[in-house]
Amino acid sequence: MEFDLIARIRDRCAHRRGDVALGIGDDAALLDVPAGQQLVACTDTLVAGVHFPVATAPEDIGWKALAVNLSDLAAMGAEPVWALLALTLPDADARFVERFADGFAALAGKHAVALIGGDTTQGPLSITVTALGFVPRGAALTRGGAHAGDAVFVTGALGDAAGALHELQDSGLGLRRQDAGANTGKADGPEGEPQERRVSRDSKPRLEASRKRLLQRMRRPRPRVAAGLALHGVASACIDVSDGLLADLRHVCTASGVGAEVDADALPFSAELRAEFDDAACRDFALTGGDDYELCFTVPPGCEDRVAAALAAAGCDATRIGRVVAGSGVRIMDAQGNVVTPPRAGWEHFSR
Amino acid sequence: MEFDLIARIRDRCAHRRGDVALGIGDDAALLDVPAGQQLVACTDTLVAGVHFPVATAPEDIGWKALAVNLSDLAAMGAEPVWALLALTLPDADARFVERFADGFAALAGKHAVALIGGDTTQGPLSITVTALGFVPRGAALTRGGAHAGDAVFVTGALGDAAGALHELQDSGLGLRRQDAGANTGKADGPEGEPQERRVSRDSKPRLEASRKRLLQRMRRPRPRVAAGLALHGVASACIDVSDGLLADLRHVCTASGVGAEVDADALPFSAELRAEFDDAACRDFALTGGDDYELCFTVPPGCEDRVAAALAAAGCDATRIGRVVAGSGVRIMDAQGNVVTPPRAGWEHFSR
Repeated sequence: MEFDLIARIRDRCAHRRGDVALGIGDDAALLDVPAGQQLVACTDTLVAGVHFPVATAPEDIGWKALAVNLSDLAAMGAEPVWALLALTLPDADARFVERFADGFAALAGKHAVALIGGDTTQGPLSITVTALGFVPRGAALTRGGAHAGDAVFVTGALGDAAGALHELQDSGLGLRRQDAGANTGKADGPEGEPQERRVSRDSKPRLEASRKRLLQRMRRPRPRVAAGLALHGVASACIDVSDGLLADLRHVCTASGVGAEVDADALPFSAELRAEFDDAACRDFALTGGDDYELCFTVPPGCEDRVAAALAAAGCDATRIGRVVAGSGVRIMDAQGNVVTPPRAGWEHFSR
Repeated sequence: MEFDLIARIRDRCAHRRGDVALGIGDDAALLDVPAGQQLVACTDTLVAGVHFPVATAPEDIGWKALAVNLSDLAAMGAEPVWALLALTLPDADARFVERFADGFAALAGKHAVALIGGDTTQGPLSITVTALGFVPRGAALTRGGAHAGDAVFVTGALGDAAGALHELQDSGLGLRRQDAGANTGKADGPEGEPQERRVSRDSKPRLEASRKRLLQRMRRPRPRVAAGLALHGVASACIDVSDGLLADLRHVCTASGVGAEVDADALPFSAELRAEFDDAACRDFALTGGDDYELCFTVPPGCEDRVAAALAAAGCDATRIGRVVAGSGVRIMDAQGNVVTPPRAGWEHFSR
């Protein structure tokens, strides 16, 4: 039965590459790394009920399991090339596996990623993907290159996934409360009661459309592969925003031995998020919500025009949200230049 | 807390390599593959209660999670180089993680494997390791090269892990019955009742020593890395015996478009297995037990002396157990040349 499941996955993940000398079906895959390229490797696990709501569509789980890994490669400025898939599921549900593989393949096909190996095992639903990519030798973007005086940028918009999760939590379809605490965007009121942050200034049909788009952003995150490639030679440091901007920018600061100031009013939000939530909620989602999979990167003085041109050519917008400073840690500043206390420290597993 | 757990693992897996340009701590690892080498990649998941008894020592789980992957690389004739570790555990148990990492590192150190990335997540205990290795271009051993007339060999001894599992099942410490069915080595008697296969001809202290050594073989399998390297240029096909000889040799036959005959009396058993079980049980364990992690390989006519010399130099013994024939499938033959019906088809997940 295992072999049958693997065949179903393989048949759906049909993208073939010339650099795969031997793919699925032997003890291991045989791969050719071109001269002049470094190999880039990462692995990420999604657990049902922790990283996605249990009721998530199998296609969306498949997409997301690959997306979170391609996002890590994008943050290194790497081109994604190959993936291995370890799928643990409670029973040999062929239909689930097919739908999962369809979602995985939809994203893999977009980026010409070949599935080159994997494992199927029986157990509680979880998925571990290992993604492999190439980057020209010496061109990788790391977390460690930011300097005081650099500008801090972020691609796209922040907070949509956390906003969507907030909606799901309200409807009882979200993550287990204990695990999702850092992600719900609920602020404690004076009595410790959750405080409602939703705005309702828009008409109902328009709100429905907004919600749908937010949910889509959560379910089908789009790794910023083209943006990562476009940042070669101009970004001094880069990370993907998976745990919330605060936590992820803090990683850059720690690795680079610097601090950062973020202008709260400069944070980019989608029209959909603004339609659903007030400013304070949008900011909380952006700073601590996680699951955005945008890139946060730093740019040396004088390089901002080059960055803008490179990203425009890659079809990606980016917003300047702050600056790298001497010292350590991340401070959020309001329009008057005062430090704002952020709501939470960001998403961490085992943080309850 | 996640970062702390990762630090504990990283500190214990201290082997460093010059081909790791950037290891744990960024979005992904940056790696250098030498010119002339192909990259070899595989991934395998162990789930608590399915692939190891829940009561297994954390050190043994860590060892085995890496061992099963290094065994896949060995079967390709690859040198193991790097590993990524995705560890899902129910809570942030630092002591468990340290002990797990100690076992993982003990095997990684033996083979100069560097841990270059990973992920820790919360959920039911399971471990996915991705192993990466090198093989000189064109030298890889695959499942697809066997020809009629080749001899079939296996390294070391078969059946020890299944024998050990049988002992544990009897003492109530084994795998969940439903999952372990293919691995217990119990044969149904005429009434459908399990039939006792154990022999008790030896003294008690000697039996205790045998049991200990069998358990050690199950808990700390030793991937045949040196043997795999020694088989370059002489073996025509190779696979590691993880699902039981019958199932694994059948994979070679399918991939090569041939059949195979195995001489039941030629199967190599350890003295410890023989001390504990009768001949029929030993044979069942070897043919269908799984978890041996020996290499089964085929050798063209006239190359047997070269194989013997190469393996002897690698410190590994091997036994000729049969031959490749035209046709398909695997037949087990007795000393009179009659076909013996094998007890079961081998270990498959979801086969209940």
